[in-house]
Amino acid sequence: MKRLTPFPALFRLPPWTSKLAHDRRRLFPSDRDRMHFVITLASMNVAHGTGGPFAAAVFETQSGTLVAIGMNLVVSTNCSLAHAELVALANAQQTLHSFDLGASGIPKHDLVTSSEPCAMCFGAIPWSGVRRVLCGARASDAEAIGFDEGPKPKAWMAALRQRGITVIRDLCRTEAVTVLQQYKRNRGTIYNARNYAQQP
Amino acid sequence: MKRLTPFPALFRLPPWTSKLAHDRRRLFPSDRDRMHFVITLASMNVAHGTGGPFAAAVFETQSGTLVAIGMNLVVSTNCSLAHAELVALANAQQTLHSFDLGASGIPKHDLVTSSEPCAMCFGAIPWSGVRRVLCGARASDAEAIGFDEGPKPKAWMAALRQRGITVIRDLCRTEAVTVLQQYKRNRGTIYNARNYAQQP
Repeated sequence: MKRLTPFPALFRLPPWTSKLAHDRRRLFPSDRDRMHFVITLASMNVAHGTGGPFAAAVFETQSGTLVAIGMNLVVSTNCSLAHAELVALANAQQTLHSFDLGASGIPKHDLVTSSEPCAMCFGAIPWSGVRRVLCGARASDAEAIGFDEGPKPKAWMAALRQRGITVIRDLCRTEAVTVLQQYKRNRGTIYNARNYAQQP
Repeated sequence: MKRLTPFPALFRLPPWTSKLAHDRRRLFPSDRDRMHFVITLASMNVAHGTGGPFAAAVFETQSGTLVAIGMNLVVSTNCSLAHAELVALANAQQTLHSFDLGASGIPKHDLVTSSEPCAMCFGAIPWSGVRRVLCGARASDAEAIGFDEGPKPKAWMAALRQRGITVIRDLCRTEAVTVLQQYKRNRGTIYNARNYAQQP
């Protein structure tokens, strides 16, 4: 399939990501290679002050080709949808000119995310067409530093598996948690879904 | 945290919506006024061939001022995120330059949607900051013409209410269902979340 200029984007990516353009030619053979790259992205997002300590990417499952990247850009783009997973999925679909990353005639795709998806990102996964979801930190790790995952069903992994989507969790979890904890130590902004029931 | 260049509209709206620009000055005093407008939008989206029979809008709760519109643009924008509710929420946030429509110092906001939210849009609501969600058709009405709402928790309304978000359903349901049925009669595209477990 013809590749366009690196990272065409529905969600505009921060300028520092242009340095990663050469990664579009790199292969990430193993699941760990893919997760290490994503965790590095999360760390860079924090270091550049462009968002929360969360990143994601879409890869071709078989070849390990990087298709698109995403990172938490909620505050910097004024958009509550701009979670890492949705940014990566939307940008992958823009790259491939398809709203379905599982369409026939194109390779199968992975969504690799540095932390387990929240309620919104979980709900987006079946629509996206990805066939595998690889998670680093657990939701409980993000909650431990003050983030909220929203009203996600407890049986979320089973719900994805029932739709034929493979879920792998705890991949490089320790490294993923390190980025979360570093963010907290540096007093990064913790914002959450508003809970009006607990607010004045 | 650094601010990037703001998007005028994250999701680009179809050209026919420019005719609605004057509605930005209109007030929609009652819930029914708001829903009628949204159902008309859904009908126009079908008539113009720019997406599925779903629309949504964000209004100021008290004044009834229209803040932003959205409609299903999944196929026309190559983006599985482009459900009516997410388009409306993202564009409202771009308009107000805030990722939180419930931020202090701004009016409270309603999300009005011609059909109940799917799993993704449900998960997005708590993050968006809206305080009320008004729904026309039920999920079962959309399912009756072949659409899928994804893995949404059965107790979705309770989950929103627990977070202090009011949910009103069955508002002008008959009119909303008419648009869905018209779409089916005209053999509009029905696409769904892929269910690999049921596919070859």
